[in-house]
Order: sequence, then C-alpha cells, then structure tokens
Amino acid sequence: MAPPSHSHATNGSGAPHSQNNGAIAVDTPVTQCARLLDADEFRRHGHLVVDFIADYYAGLGEYPVHPTVSPGFLRHHLPAEAPSSRTEPADAFAAALQDVRDVILPGLTHWQSPRHFAHFPASSSTVGALGEALTTGINVVPFTWAASPAATELEMVVVDWLGKALHLPERMLFAGGGGGTILGTTCEAILCALVAARDRKLTVIGEERIGDLVVYCSDQTHFAFCKAACITGIQRDHCSEIPTYRDDTFALSPAELQAAMQRDVDAGLVPLFLCATIGTTQTTAVDTVGELCAVAAPHGAWVHVDAAYAGSALVCPEFRGVIAGGVEAADSFSMNAHKWLLANNDCCVMWVRTPSALVAALGTDQEYILKDAAAATAAEGVVDYKDWGVTLTRRFRALKVWLVLRCYGVEGLREHVRSHVRMAAAFEGMVRADARFEVVTPRRFALVCFRLRSPKNYRSAGGEKSANELNRRLLEEVNAASSGPYMSSGMVGGVYMLRCAVGSTLTEERHVREAWKVVQDRATSILRKMEIIM
Amino acid sequence: MAPPSHSHATNGSGAPHSQNNGAIAVDTPVTQCARLLDADEFRRHGHLVVDFIADYYAGLGEYPVHPTVSPGFLRHHLPAEAPSSRTEPADAFAAALQDVRDVILPGLTHWQSPRHFAHFPASSSTVGALGEALTTGINVVPFTWAASPAATELEMVVVDWLGKALHLPERMLFAGGGGGTILGTTCEAILCALVAARDRKLTVIGEERIGDLVVYCSDQTHFAFCKAACITGIQRDHCSEIPTYRDDTFALSPAELQAAMQRDVDAGLVPLFLCATIGTTQTTAVDTVGELCAVAAPHGAWVHVDAAYAGSALVCPEFRGVIAGGVEAADSFSMNAHKWLLANNDCCVMWVRTPSALVAALGTDQEYILKDAAAATAAEGVVDYKDWGVTLTRRFRALKVWLVLRCYGVEGLREHVRSHVRMAAAFEGMVRADARFEVVTPRRFALVCFRLRSPKNYRSAGGEKSANELNRRLLEEVNAASSGPYMSSGMVGGVYMLRCAVGSTLTEERHVREAWKVVQDRATSILRKMEIIM
Repeated sequence: MAPPSHSHATNGSGAPHSQNNGAIAVDTPVTQCARLLDADEFRRHGHLVVDFIADYYAGLGEYPVHPTVSPGFLRHHLPAEAPSSRTEPADAFAAALQDVRDVILPGLTHWQSPRHFAHFPASSSTVGALGEALTTGINVVPFTWAASPAATELEMVVVDWLGKALHLPERMLFAGGGGGTILGTTCEAILCALVAARDRKLTVIGEERIGDLVVYCSDQTHFAFCKAACITGIQRDHCSEIPTYRDDTFALSPAELQAAMQRDVDAGLVPLFLCATIGTTQTTAVDTVGELCAVAAPHGAWVHVDAAYAGSALVCPEFRGVIAGGVEAADSFSMNAHKWLLANNDCCVMWVRTPSALVAALGTDQEYILKDAAAATAAEGVVDYKDWGVTLTRRFRALKVWLVLRCYGVEGLREHVRSHVRMAAAFEGMVRADARFEVVTPRRFALVCFRLRSPKNYRSAGGEKSANELNRRLLEEVNAASSGPYMSSGMVGGVYMLRCAVGSTLTEERHVREAWKVVQDRATSILRKMEIIM
Repeated sequence: MAPPSHSHATNGSGAPHSQNNGAIAVDTPVTQCARLLDADEFRRHGHLVVDFIADYYAGLGEYPVHPTVSPGFLRHHLPAEAPSSRTEPADAFAAALQDVRDVILPGLTHWQSPRHFAHFPASSSTVGALGEALTTGINVVPFTWAASPAATELEMVVVDWLGKALHLPERMLFAGGGGGTILGTTCEAILCALVAARDRKLTVIGEERIGDLVVYCSDQTHFAFCKAACITGIQRDHCSEIPTYRDDTFALSPAELQAAMQRDVDAGLVPLFLCATIGTTQTTAVDTVGELCAVAAPHGAWVHVDAAYAGSALVCPEFRGVIAGGVEAADSFSMNAHKWLLANNDCCVMWVRTPSALVAALGTDQEYILKDAAAATAAEGVVDYKDWGVTLTRRFRALKVWLVLRCYGVEGLREHVRSHVRMAAAFEGMVRADARFEVVTPRRFALVCFRLRSPKNYRSAGGEKSANELNRRLLEEVNAASSGPYMSSGMVGGVYMLRCAVGSTLTEERHVREAWKVVQDRATSILRKMEIIM
C-alpha cells in the first residue's frame, strides 16, 4: 500500500494538530460560513471530484478487485483524533483527495470493477451517479409534500413509471389505487410491510397476541426477512423457514407452506406473513407467487414479494413469465434499483396494494410538521412519505430514478439487462462444456452457480464434504489472482458452490471469458497438485 | 411555473414514446453497456452537473424558499409512462438537466436557502456534498469488513474522531470498549437501540413477556421514538409520554419519571427504555440525562440520548455543560451530522456502550457473505457493520464525515456552530426588544421560539386560543412573502409559537435582520387590520 501523502494521515501519534491553529479569526464568522458553501469554491472542487471519479472509472480495470490487506491496516495508520485546525480549504481538499487515491482506494473492494462477479451487482451508471450528486447538492428533505412538493410528486410519478416498466399489476400503482415509495434497502421495505401486516392483524385479534404470530419463508429467503421479523417483535422461533430442495430448483413448495400454516393454526398460532422471493440470493430461485398467495389467502396472511435482484429483469418482456398471474394477489412487492437497474446506492422501490395499511402502522401526526401540509395533501391525492417508511429524514432519491428512466429509457434498461444475461449464458455454456464442472442450478438471470464435480478418487472418502473443500480452495485461489475475477460462494442443500454474478456495468464479454480461463487454470493446477481424478 | 422545456416532460397524453425507437441495435450490447459508465461521458456530464449545482447555490437567494404550488402541480403534468427509447445520451442528459432547472427546482422547498429558518437545518457544505458525490461515484457496499475493508475501517476511525470532538465519554468510543456506526437517520438509531434493549431484557424475563414492556419519554420527545417503539412490538399504550411544563423549560422531570416507572412496576409491567433528548424538536429543551439515568438504573432500563439537532453544538466546549456528568451513564447516544455539522443528507451517527448487545439483536450469519470475513474480523477487532443496523446494503458515509473533519477541522466546525448561535442570539435580542412579542422559551442553541403576546382586547374573549390564531395568521403571512423568510411553528403547553431555526450554511446576519423586519411588518399590518391593542 502506498504511504499516505499528507502529513495528517501519517500522524499516528494522536498528537493534537496545532499547525495553523487560530487561523480562523473569531470576528469573521459570517464570511467563514459563507465559504463553506461558496459557489465558486464548489465549482472548483467539484470539477476536481468529477475528474477524480472519471479517472477512477478509466483505471478500474487495473485495480485488484479485492485488496490484499489485513484487518487494522487503515485503522492503525490514521491519527487518533480529528485535526483541530482548519487548513486552507483549497489545500486541504486537494490533499484529502490525494489521500483518497493513495490510502482509501487501495483498501476498497471495487464493486464497479468489470471483474467483480461476487454477491449481486451494485450497478452504477453515469446518470445514476450524477443523479445522486445532484440530489446531495440540492439537499432537500422531502418528508412531507409541503417540505418539498416537487420531490414528493416526482416520487409518485416515477414509482408508477417503474412499476409499469416492470409489468407490475395496475393495483399496485397509484394509478390503480395502490402506490409506491423509494426507500434505501429491501431490509427497510420488508420491515415496513411486516409492521403494516402485523398491526392490521393485531387490530383484529388483539395486541396481546403478538406472541402467537408466525411468519413464513423458505430456507433460501434472504436473512433480512427473519431479521426484520425479529425487529417487529415476532418470536425468533416463529419465523418458519420451509426447507427447499435441489430437485425443485430451491423454490418454496406451496404444499409444504400449506402444511406448515395448518400445523400452526392447529397449535393455536396465527399465520401472519409470507415472504416469497423472485430470484433468491444464493441461486436466483423463483417462488411461484400465485400458488403461494392462494395458500396464504384463507389465513388472511400478507404476501410480500422480494425481488431485490431479479426485479430489474422484469423490465424485459421475456422475463414477465416469472411473475405472470402471480403478483396480482400479493400485498406488496419490492426491488432494488441499485442492484441491476443503474440507480446507484441506495435505491429500493416498494409498492403496496393498500397504502392505508402502511399509513395506519407508520403514520404520525404532530403540530410542528403537519398543520401546513394536512389540508393540502388530503385534497389532491398526494402523500406524505414519512408515513410510508421508518424514517422521517429521507433523500430525494426520485430525482435519480427519474433521470435514469428519462435518459436511458425502458429500452435502454432492457438492453443493459439483456447484455448481462447474454454474458452469463455464455459463461454457463463454458462451464457446461468442461466435463470437470457442473452447473448447480439452471441459470435464470445473470447468475451462474457452478462447482467442480465430486472427484472420483474422493467419493469413497468423505464424498460431498471433500468436494466442498475442493471448491472452497478453488474459490480462494481464483480470488487470490490480483488481476483475476472476484467471485463469491453459496451453500445449498449441503453443496458448496461458486457464484459468478455478471452485472457490473463495465463488464464486457472479454472479462467473462478471462474469468472462466482463470477458473479453469486454477482448477487444473489444484487437481494436479492434489492428484485428483475427475 | 415555467413550462417544461423538453417534449417528453410536456407530453401529458401518456402516449408511448416511440421517437428514435430501435436506435439501439440489438447486436451491440457490450458497447452500449460500456457507455453507461464511460469515463469520458461521465467527465463531460459531471462537469455539467457541478456547474448546475454551483449556479444553484449562487442563485439560491433569488428563489422563494417555499414554492407557491398546489398538490398535483407536477404529477399531473408529467407523462403517465417512462420514455421507451433511449435518446442520444448527450442530448437526453442536457435536456433532463434543463427540466430540473425549469420544472423541478421551482417546485422545491429550498432547504439551502439563506432564508430557510423552518424545522431544523439540513446543513450542506462543499466538502459534505462532494463527499457524497465521491461516495456515489465509487459506489461500494461495505456491509462487512471484507466487502470493502477501507470503508469499514474509516467508519471506525471517524466515529471515534467525532465522538471525541463532541466530548462524549470514552466508554462510548471504540477506544474505550464501546463503538459507533453511521446510519441514515435518528429513527434508525433509536430503532436499533430499542431492539438491542428489548432483546437483552426478554432474554432475562422471557420472550412471551413482550406485552409487559414499557418505554418512556417526555411529551416533547420526537414522534420517531414512539413510532420506533411500535415498530419493535411495544404496545401503543405502553409508550409512556411524561408531561413537561413551561416552568421547567419543557425538560423531562426525573421525579415524574421515577413515579411513572414505579407505577408500572407496581402494575406488573417492566420498564425497558428511556429516550432522553438533548435539544428537543419544538424548543430545544435539554433533559438532565445524569439524573434520568439514576432513575432508570435500578430498573435496568436502557437510556438512549437523542441529540439529533443539538449534538452538533457539543463540538464547542462552551456547550459541554448540557451533557456534563450525564452521558457517562447512558447506554447509547445519537446525533445527525446532516442537521448542523455540514455532512449532507443522510448522516446519523450512533454510539453505544455495549456493541455486543447490538450485535446480539441485529447480527446475522450466513454462508454466502460471512465465511471469508469471519476469521479476518474476529482477530483484529474490526467489525461487520451489517450487524450494527437494520440494513445490509449501506453507503460509504464515512468518507463524507472524514472529509468534513479533515478539511474543516474541529475548529472550523466550532466556528460554523458559533456563527449560527450568534445570529440566533441577535434574533432573540430583536424579539425581546419589541414589546408586542415574547420569547416562549429561553434560546439555548440556534433556535428562537417566539410569538405575539396575547392581545389585551382579546384576553377576555378566548384568551390563549385567540393568541394562537393570531400567531398562526402571522406565520402564514410571513411565509407568504416570496422574498421573505420561511419559518415553521410549534405548539407547547397549549401555546402556539413561531420557530426561527438559524442553521442554513448560507445564512448571514443580514438574512436574520431581514427576516425579523418581515415578521415585524406583517405583525404591524395584521394588528392594524384586526384593530388589536397590544
């Protein structure tokens, strides 16, 4: 790692920073404060930052995707205290940028690298990034309509735009009596839906029966769901995780859900909520939402569809099949536009069929923010978004989503998604063409789950466990190559696998081919060293 | 409102946008995607955005702070669907920016206006805004240490830097066995602290007793607290709001808290949590944290200190008195650096004394993200921040906080706070010098709560109610002046008051003087029209 360029960053002593102390005369406060947001200074420093980011993108291919650093590498090299004095702004900012380049960047995992295939993508775009920059520059706080009318109204417009583009049912849009909001993450969306469902149910059965409520998901559902359920006061052992199987492509079985709900009802418990997933985190499995809704309906259970990753694919008509006839009956739906739809972090869009249930659970009313707004909003069907989420303070995320839709168009988004799907299909083809490997579950979107097969001379001694160890070692070696790809792992049905998620905006076909080449080479080397016969 | 400049924005027909359709050839997907994050295009468009924001700051004084628009003004003027085709990027982006200028900006409430005195400030700075821009440009997702090591470590460093700068007790810093994290909002911070406290308590008394838990606050506590308590499954009538009085400057009475807790214990209930506030939303009242902690301690109740607004003032030694000897005994503390400490939205910093309680409640463990990280993080005392908050996806907010501290220094932040305090003191002085007005509660930070006194010839007929109506009308007329200040209101102890919160980064003394002049002029005009005798 390059040494920090600036004296402050190298000061590990924790000694007070006294240079230039007192440079700010106490009798010139107004001038000082004005300079903190001076248009000319913003322009000068802003252009530095734009060039910094552009240079970063241009050079991203050169960075190892994942840094080879040890815990504490940065923490123990920075001073123990913030600098006390303000240095000359121009110098300080340029020096700080130099430290970002020299000290911070080499310690990051570069999610925007064309060779980042781990987890799910955090897809950036020029328009998404600049939309965020614009939002933070304008820096309004649209918690009510009155607190920034255009921000609220633009949010109402773009959630309908996006919902239509994703082929969601009309009843989830404002245009059809439902509505949507833009939150930070799926964790928040699920939490909001859960609280709405819980309060609706407890109103009927009584608050004291919170201990009887049960929520359902599959063993493939993201852990955010059980975490959210615990946050809402659902007992830990009332988060019913239904097992899935490789033969069913790890989809949640409606029959097993029905059995689980019936067992709970028989035990005097109350089915509250089902979290179905379109595109699970490990293998992008797709739950059959329609059938699951039919199971949940007689129990009055709320059905939420978590399409955090795969929701973006619904922009393509060819993927409509995964929700066809299903989402109509669901109560809420969420997807992360920051994952695969070019809206930079963070950007989760949630739609609900009955906004009144959300507002009943999360709405608040207090003199100091509402009196000016209440009359205005009631009349024209506009909303106060503070009543649709956990937080009061919120960012004007709608601006970014509007710019992305406006500048790239629905067709542009489709091409973006399709290009990744094509590249993933190509990767899948390469895996299938090498007899040593297997594809663990059929690729549905742009994630390929694969592994080295169980070696012949290992099958007797340990079998699956040995194969898992082998693949663990393979992933380690693949990720250790500093100019190679960076992938992650999964474990489904006892099977350890590698995950190659194609989705970085900068990824091109050559990166995918090169990634596969690295996997093959490392496999060959490992198998030879271990004297393994495939 | 100026008509939208671009054909798309004016297309209210909802007709499909078919111009240029098919411009994106299906056989060139890779090139298309690369262009979505092309360095040169980012540079070109980025410079446009920087100039756009700089121009906005330069011209901010010219905008009415609050737009005169009616609900639906924007919603009904935008097309019902997103454009289907991608237009030429350069054109589309420039045209979109023009629409932001012509259509969006005139419909916003300009929180950065030097004449914005409503609510609490959302203080921007050049470094804060550009720190956010840098974060979104780099766009990493630091949910675990391994997912972006430098981001996690920088967060650990800056929360200690900031905690020291705010004179927080050592035991809340990593350096003293506690620790901090950067979340979006105080709502999230309180929610996390509540869940940690709840689970710690239920582990002792049993999950089934959730219905017996009671949480405490004053009637001045932000509604976010009771909302968060409801989210965690605390019964609505178990959020005990203790009345406050003007004679006590609306601070929470330790004696009344003690009585309330004892009553609940006698009734078989379990005191769980106290939310004390330093700088309440309506009047910036300061609860005496030390005494309140002493009351809560025998019950094993968790004490959280919400210093969302006033926490920033603690950077000045002269404000240390408000926490002196108090926060030592609290369990957690949070403040919004986005309110008054130049870190643009969103940026709430929370510190806790026992991070293990947070992780026990919010921690998760799953193969596909943890195996590579667990070994690494355990060793060197670094953390996985996903276990410290509600969300998995999080932004690299530490970069912004580091840049602000690095470039402005602790002294720079002090001067920033002090300049606002001085201006607010000047405003308070002007109010006191006009016998028609009264200051409702003594100013503590940079918020002045004031009102027209109860008119002599109204006192017999309705008294307080008439005074409230009078002040309501005053605020309306003050805010209606398009080149005037924008203030908000509060209602404490039956008294309606105007709130003048000095805190916009661009506010100078002349804006404060002009604001007071508008208030006086409108008051004179109203009093004359109503033939009121003061």
